[in-house]
Amino acid sequence: MKKVGIILGSASDIAAAEKAAAQLGELGIPFETHIYSAHRTPDEAREFALTAREKGFGAIICAAGMAAHLAGAVAANTTLPVIGIPLKGGMMDGLDALLSTVQMPSGIPVATVAINGAANAALLAAEIIAVTDAAIAERLAALREKQREKVLAASREAEEKLRGEAD
Amino acid sequence: MKKVGIILGSASDIAAAEKAAAQLGELGIPFETHIYSAHRTPDEAREFALTAREKGFGAIICAAGMAAHLAGAVAANTTLPVIGIPLKGGMMDGLDALLSTVQMPSGIPVATVAINGAANAALLAAEIIAVTDAAIAERLAALREKQREKVLAASREAEEKLRGEAD
Amino acid sequence: MKKVGIILGSASDIAAAEKAAAQLGELGIPFETHIYSAHRTPDEAREFALTAREKGFGAIICAAGMAAHLAGAVAANTTLPVIGIPLKGGMMDGLDALLSTVQMPSGIPVATVAINGAANAALLAAEIIAVTDAAIAERLAALREKQREKVLAASREAEEKLRGEAD
Amino acid sequence: MKKVGIILGSASDIAAAEKAAAQLGELGIPFETHIYSAHRTPDEAREFALTAREKGFGAIICAAGMAAHLAGAVAANTTLPVIGIPLKGGMMDGLDALLSTVQMPSGIPVATVAINGAANAALLAAEIIAVTDAAIAERLAALREKQREKVLAASREAEEKLRGEAD
Amino acid sequence: MKKVGIILGSASDIAAAEKAAAQLGELGIPFETHIYSAHRTPDEAREFALTAREKGFGAIICAAGMAAHLAGAVAANTTLPVIGIPLKGGMMDGLDALLSTVQMPSGIPVATVAINGAANAALLAAEIIAVTDAAIAERLAALREKQREKVLAASREAEEKLRGEAD
Amino acid sequence: MKKVGIILGSASDIAAAEKAAAQLGELGIPFETHIYSAHRTPDEAREFALTAREKGFGAIICAAGMAAHLAGAVAANTTLPVIGIPLKGGMMDGLDALLSTVQMPSGIPVATVAINGAANAALLAAEIIAVTDAAIAERLAALREKQREKVLAASREAEEKLRGEAD
Amino acid sequence: MKKVGIILGSASDIAAAEKAAAQLGELGIPFETHIYSAHRTPDEAREFALTAREKGFGAIICAAGMAAHLAGAVAANTTLPVIGIPLKGGMMDGLDALLSTVQMPSGIPVATVAINGAANAALLAAEIIAVTDAAIAERLAALREKQREKVLAASREAEEKLRGEAD
Amino acid sequence: MKKVGIILGSASDIAAAEKAAAQLGELGIPFETHIYSAHRTPDEAREFALTAREKGFGAIICAAGMAAHLAGAVAANTTLPVIGIPLKGGMMDGLDALLSTVQMPSGIPVATVAINGAANAALLAAEIIAVTDAAIAERLAALREKQREKVLAASREAEEKLRGEAD
Repeated sequence: MKKVGIILGSASDIAAAEKAAAQLGELGIPFETHIYSAHRTPDEAREFALTAREKGFGAIICAAGMAAHLAGAVAANTTLPVIGIPLKGGMMDGLDALLSTVQMPSGIPVATVAINGAANAALLAAEIIAVTDAAIAERLAALREKQREKVLAASREAEEKLRGEAD
Repeated sequence: MKKVGIILGSASDIAAAEKAAAQLGELGIPFETHIYSAHRTPDEAREFALTAREKGFGAIICAAGMAAHLAGAVAANTTLPVIGIPLKGGMMDGLDALLSTVQMPSGIPVATVAINGAANAALLAAEIIAVTDAAIAERLAALREKQREKVLAASREAEEKLRGEAD
Repeated sequence: MKKVGIILGSASDIAAAEKAAAQLGELGIPFETHIYSAHRTPDEAREFALTAREKGFGAIICAAGMAAHLAGAVAANTTLPVIGIPLKGGMMDGLDALLSTVQMPSGIPVATVAINGAANAALLAAEIIAVTDAAIAERLAALREKQREKVLAASREAEEKLRGEAD
Repeated sequence: MKKVGIILGSASDIAAAEKAAAQLGELGIPFETHIYSAHRTPDEAREFALTAREKGFGAIICAAGMAAHLAGAVAANTTLPVIGIPLKGGMMDGLDALLSTVQMPSGIPVATVAINGAANAALLAAEIIAVTDAAIAERLAALREKQREKVLAASREAEEKLRGEAD
Repeated sequence: MKKVGIILGSASDIAAAEKAAAQLGELGIPFETHIYSAHRTPDEAREFALTAREKGFGAIICAAGMAAHLAGAVAANTTLPVIGIPLKGGMMDGLDALLSTVQMPSGIPVATVAINGAANAALLAAEIIAVTDAAIAERLAALREKQREKVLAASREAEEKLRGEAD
Repeated sequence: MKKVGIILGSASDIAAAEKAAAQLGELGIPFETHIYSAHRTPDEAREFALTAREKGFGAIICAAGMAAHLAGAVAANTTLPVIGIPLKGGMMDGLDALLSTVQMPSGIPVATVAINGAANAALLAAEIIAVTDAAIAERLAALREKQREKVLAASREAEEKLRGEAD
Repeated sequence: MKKVGIILGSASDIAAAEKAAAQLGELGIPFETHIYSAHRTPDEAREFALTAREKGFGAIICAAGMAAHLAGAVAANTTLPVIGIPLKGGMMDGLDALLSTVQMPSGIPVATVAINGAANAALLAAEIIAVTDAAIAERLAALREKQREKVLAASREAEEKLRGEAD
Repeated sequence: MKKVGIILGSASDIAAAEKAAAQLGELGIPFETHIYSAHRTPDEAREFALTAREKGFGAIICAAGMAAHLAGAVAANTTLPVIGIPLKGGMMDGLDALLSTVQMPSGIPVATVAINGAANAALLAAEIIAVTDAAIAERLAALREKQREKVLAASREAEEKLRGEAD
C-alpha cells in the first residue's frame, strides 16, 4: 500500500502530526513523520519531496504556521498530492498560514484543509489512497457510519434534555 | 401554536441550544431540539427540513460553526423561515461561520443573527410567530419593557457612582 | 394579507428596493417603500417602526450601507421581524454594513441576509408571511421548483458544451 | 464650563465610563454618566441628545460594542461633537464596533477613537473644550509634559538594563 | 472666529481637501490648506502643529492614506482637536489608513471619521467651533434640516415609483 | 481510467469549469461537467455524490462562490476526494467562499485550492489519479518541465530588458 | 560596489522590477534581474540565493503575489538581507502576499515593504549599501531633499487653490 | 563596528527589546536601547534619527503596537535602514500595527518583520552589517547551521515517536 508522509515545519507542531498519525493508524495506513522546515532545513524538505514517489508515498501532509511555505515548497518538488494544514499560532487564528498555504500560483496545487485540521488531512490522504484501494474505501465508509451514529446518539440525548412545551 | 425547531451542527454546540430554548420557554413557545450535522448526518438534516412545515414548525433555528452549512442545507429543503446562528470556535471569532451562514445565493435566504446570538435567534423566531399571534406579540412587548427598565435601573446606579463636578 | 415595508437608508440605495419590490410583486405580496435614514431622518424611521404593526405590516426590510444602523434603529422600535440588507459601497465589499447590521446586542434581533441580498430579503419576508398563509407558501414552493429547473437546464447545456474523453 | 456627557450602551461597559470619568476628573472637567442603549432605550438616548446643548454639554462620549449604533444614534439628534468609543467584546477585537462607529454616512459625523480608547475619548472632549478655554488648554499641555517625562524615565531605566557592547 | 487647518499627506489627496473646503466654505468657516507629509516633510508638519493654536486654529483636519501617520504626527505636537480622514488607495479600501489613524495610543487622541469622509471631517470641525459659537451652531442645525428635507423628498419619489399591491 | 467530475454551483461559474476542463483535456483525463447547486438542486448534488464512486469517478471538483457549500455538500455524501474551488463574486475577493469551503468540520475533508484556482483543481485531480497511474504521472512531470522552461525563457527576456550598471 | 538582485516570481510581475530598477539606476547602484519562481523553478531560486554573496550581491529584492514564498525561499538559502515586495493580484489587495512574505518564522528574516512597494524596496536596498558607502548615502539624502521640495511645491499650489475666508 | 539602535514605543514593549538585544548580544553586535514614543516624545525620536548615522549606527530597530508610527517617524528622519517590529496588543493580533508599519508611502521605506518578530529584527540588522563585515557573516552562517541541526534532531525524535505501519 502507498504510505503517507507527515511533514512538520517545526517541532512545536507535533500535536498536528499526532492527530494525523492517530487517524491514519486507525485506518491501517502506513505513514512516516519528519520535521523539515521550508526555511531552516530547505534541502531536507526538497530532498524528501524529490524522492517521495519512488519511496512509495501516495500523499504528503505538510503542517505549518505563520508564512506557511512548507506545503508549497514540497509541492514544488513533487507531483504527488500535497495536503496542507495551516496552523494557528501566528495571527488571526491562522489566517496568515491559511492564505500562505492555499493561495498557490497556477501550476503547483496544494490541497488545503481547515486551520488545524490534522484529522481531515489524514482522511483526505486516505481518500486519495482509497481511489484505487477498495479496502481503505470500506474503512472510510465505516468511519462515516460511526460518525453518523455518534451524532444521532448525541441528538437523542439533547432531545431529552431540551424539551419545550411542544413535546 | 406553531413550534420552533432548534438544530445544532454538533454536540459541542449545546450551549447555544440551551440559551435559545430558555428564551423560547420564557415566552411560552413550544420547541424541539435536534443535533443534525449538515456533513455527518446530511440525510437527517434534509429529512427534518422536508417535513418541518407539515409537522407544525413555524421557524427553524440552526446553530453551527466553521464552514457553517447547516442553516443553508436546511433552507435548501424548506420554505419555512430558517434562522442561522454562526458560532465561534473556528477562526476570527466566528467570521468563518458568519460568512458561511449569511452569504447565501439568491433564492434561498437564511435569516442570520449575531455570532453566538442564540437568544436573538429565539426572539426572531418568536417575532415571526407573533406576526399572526397577538398573545406572543404582547409577551414580546412586555419583554422589551423589562429590558428597558433594566437598562434604566443600571443607568441610575451608574449616575450615582460616576459623578463629575457638574453634579 | 400582511404587507411588507421596504425602507432604504439613502436615495442611492434604490436598486435594492427595486429588486426586493420585484420579488414581492412576483409573489403577490403587498408592500410599501420609504427612504428614511437612521441618521438624517431618525424621527421618521422611528415613527414608521412604532406604527408598523397596527398599519398591517408583517415584516420590515431595511437596506443600508456603511455603518448600517437602519435595521437596528427600526428593530429598536418594533417587535415585528426586521430584515436587514447590508449594502456594498463603504469598504471591503460591505463588511462594514454586514457587521453593523448583524452584530445586534441581545434583545433586539435583526434577520440579516447576504450583502446586497435584496431578493433574498423579499423571499424571507414572504416566508414569514407564508408561515400562516398557505397560498404564499405554495407560490414559494413553485418558485423553488422553477429555480431548480433553471439550474438543471443550465446543467444540460454545460454538460453538452464541456465534454471530456469519458463521454 | 461646558460639561461632558458619558453614555454607555450597556451596564457591562462601565469600565470605559470609569476610565473616561477619571481622566475628565483629573482635568477638572464636569461630566455626567448615563446608560442609554440605542436599541433597548432608544427614546432616552434620543431625548438626551436633543436636549444636550441647552443643558450645557460641550461634547458627548458614547461607548458601545458589537453593532455599536449608540454614537451614531446620538449624533443623529444633536450637532454637538459626539465622540465614539468602539468596545471589544463582539468579534475580532472590536472590528465590528469600530466599523459600526466610524463609517458614518455623510452629514452626521462621529469622532471615533481607538478601540477601548476611553482615556483618549476624554482627552478629545477636553481638547474640544480647550479650544476656547485657556485653563483647560494649559492642563492638557501639562499632562503632555508629564507623559513625556514618564516615557523618558522609562527610557533611562531601559537604557541601563539593556546595554550592548557599544556602551 | 477660530479657523480650521486642512493638511494633506500627499498632493494626490487633493480631492479630500476640496470636499472639506467646500463644506467649511458653505458654513462660513475660515480655513487654510497645506500639503505636509508626515514622512517626506516631517519638520513642516511638526512646525504647523506646534504653532497652530497661537495662529488661531480651532481644529486641524489631516487626510492621509496607507500607513496614515499624518494625523498622529500632528496630534503629537498640539493639544488642539485633530481630525483624521483615512483615505482609500492603499489596501482593503483604506483599512490600512483607518487602523493607522484611529488606533492611537493612550494620551494622544485623533478624532477619526469614515474612510474618505472629508465632508464629515469638516462638519466635525464646525461642530467643535459651534460649541461656543451660536451662529455656526445655527447653520449646522439648518444644514441638518436641509438634509432631512432632501431625504424626505427622495422618499416621496420612491414611494411613487415603487408601489406594491397594498397601495 | 478514473474520470473527474466538475460540478458548478451556478451557471455563472462556467469559466471555472472551462479552465479545469481544458487542463484535464490537455492531460488526457476523462471528465464530466454538471451544474448542481447545493441550495437550489440539493437532491441532484446529493445523488451525484452518492453514486460517483460506482460510476468510475476518482475525484470531484466543486466550484462555488459566496457561502460556498457545494464542495462540503458533495463531500458529505461520498468518500471520494472532493476538491473545492472558492470563487470570487461575493465579497472580499472570495474570502467568503474560501472560508465556507476550507473550514470543514472534522470528519469530512475538502481539498481546497486557491480562490478561482480552477487549473490547480484540475492538476490536483490529476495528481490524485497519478498516484497509481504512471502515464498521468509522466504527463504531470512533463507539464512541470514545460512550466519551468517558460519561466526561464521569460527570465532571459527580463534579464536582457532590465540591466543595471553591474552587467 | 555591491550589486542588488531583483527576482520576480512570475513574468507578469515585470512592472515591479521596472520600478525597482529605475530607482536603483537613478541612484547609480548596479543590479541584475531574474524571474525565478519559488514553485515553478525552485532550483534556480535556490541556486541564485546560495551563490549571491560570493557573486557580489549586497541585497536581494523578491517580488511575488498570492502565497508569496519567493522572498522566504531565497532567504532560506542566504544570509544576505532579503527584501520582500508583496504584490496585489491574489485577494484583498495583496493581503495574502503580505502575510506570506512578512510572517516569517524566527531565524529567517525577510525585510518586507508595502504592497506593490517596488520603489521603496529599491530604496531600502540602497540604504543597506549606504551603511558603508558614503556616496550612496549622500545620493539618498539628496533624494529626500528633492522629495521634500516636491511636496512643498505642491503645498504652495494647494494653498493658492484652496483658500478659505481666513486668508 | 556599526552599532544597532533598538527603540521602543512604550515601556510595556520591553520584552521585544530584550529578545532583540539577546540575539544581537549572541552575535557580538553592539547596540543601544531607548524608549522614544512617536507620539509622546516625538522630539526625542526625531533627534535620535537625525543623529544616528554620525553616532555610528548601522540600523535602527523600532518596535511599536497599535497605530505603530514609530518606525515611520524614525525613517522620516534618517536614511539608515529602519527595521519595524509590529507588536500585538491593539487588535486582531497586531494587524493594526502591521499595516501601520509596513504600508509606508513611496520614498520612505521601513523594513518590516513579522508581528512580534524581535529576534528576526535583530537578525536582519545583523545581515545588514554583515554585507560588509565577513566576521558577522560567518557568525550568521554558523547560526543557520545550528538552527538546521536543531530541526533535524527534533525530526529524529519525532520519527521515533510517530511511526506508522510502514516502518
